[in-house]
Amino acid sequence: MSERGLLIILSGPSGVGKGTVRKAIFESEDTDFEYSVSMTTREKRVGEVEGIDYFFRKRAEFEALIAAGEMLEYAEYVGNYYGTPLTYVNQTLDTGKDVFLEIEVQGAMKVKEKIPDGVFIFLTPPDLTELKSRIVGRGTDKPAIIEERMRVAKEEIEMMSHYDYAVVNDKVELAVERIKKIIVSEHYRVDRVIEKYKKMIKEL
Amino acid sequence: MSERGLLIILSGPSGVGKGTVRKAIFESEDTDFEYSVSMTTREKRVGEVEGIDYFFRKRAEFEALIAAGEMLEYAEYVGNYYGTPLTYVNQTLDTGKDVFLEIEVQGAMKVKEKIPDGVFIFLTPPDLTELKSRIVGRGTDKPAIIEERMRVAKEEIEMMSHYDYAVVNDKVELAVERIKKIIVSEHYRVDRVIEKYKKMIKEL
Repeated sequence: MSERGLLIILSGPSGVGKGTVRKAIFESEDTDFEYSVSMTTREKRVGEVEGIDYFFRKRAEFEALIAAGEMLEYAEYVGNYYGTPLTYVNQTLDTGKDVFLEIEVQGAMKVKEKIPDGVFIFLTPPDLTELKSRIVGRGTDKPAIIEERMRVAKEEIEMMSHYDYAVVNDKVELAVERIKKIIVSEHYRVDRVIEKYKKMIKEL
Repeated sequence: MSERGLLIILSGPSGVGKGTVRKAIFESEDTDFEYSVSMTTREKRVGEVEGIDYFFRKRAEFEALIAAGEMLEYAEYVGNYYGTPLTYVNQTLDTGKDVFLEIEVQGAMKVKEKIPDGVFIFLTPPDLTELKSRIVGRGTDKPAIIEERMRVAKEEIEMMSHYDYAVVNDKVELAVERIKKIIVSEHYRVDRVIEKYKKMIKEL
């Protein structure tokens, strides 16, 4: 009667510290996420194991998966594809394990199209002061530059509205604790457990 | 720039231990809820203070508030009304304070009509074994009695679907920790903070 795992997506503007927070979460003692094994078209290196380090695929095969909508998200980097296979993620979730993805904002929105019941967490810069200083700069910037930064900040915040949670990254340890609490709480959401309870009643 | 507090509603089937869990939450060190001051038609006792122990009102006045839809929920007990005034709760939420209500399932559904963005937490009995033993009884009960219990259990679970979270009350300390995590996480929900961020941008 295990319930389906959660897909947790950590994203946010570049430079906000997503990678550092993700690493700290995985190193944290009381978390138990499945590493999402990526698929790639690059050559297997010595010691690397299929299905552990990567799923290694030919370029044509990878492109066929993209065309079939079988990639949860993907990117091309130095001539090779890297991506997250949808079927693999769904199978892992079905075993009851949580899967954690840390990706760019564009990728996160693609994931949302395919797995809308994922837990989408937006990491934000510390506070108003920082946001303002990021936009206004050192006071020597041209109005056009400030205006451009303002436009980007607005876009980021508009982006946030597609997420479930906004977590401030003021201190890595604090951001980690907040995210861990969110994940625990999400497991208690009625939408996620009601089927289990209904089954209980039926099986009596 | 304080954001509006959360209305937290703890409810669940009778006998599940709502009162014990609520007490433990209030006694817990790192919680800071506003006690919801109730309104009553009973006589003020020596030492009781208006607006602290209760809002004391005449019966006619209380009934006028009911008629005006100004009671978040209310009940009659030994000839006197007891209830939660809507305006008081909204004003407290507006100061940024969280308000915690522990009420019966019927009351909780009334609260949902008036404050749909409250955090509705359903406390459930420990597990399948307990649920089953509650329904099947000691094995000496008549089929009609078992059937009636089954009907009640089904109704309770249908009720659960109107809530946001289902928390198992296996151990009071554990239930308290889960509820505290839910409350913290709810403060990070994008719907609750996006206006604050939009305001930040505007105020630059």
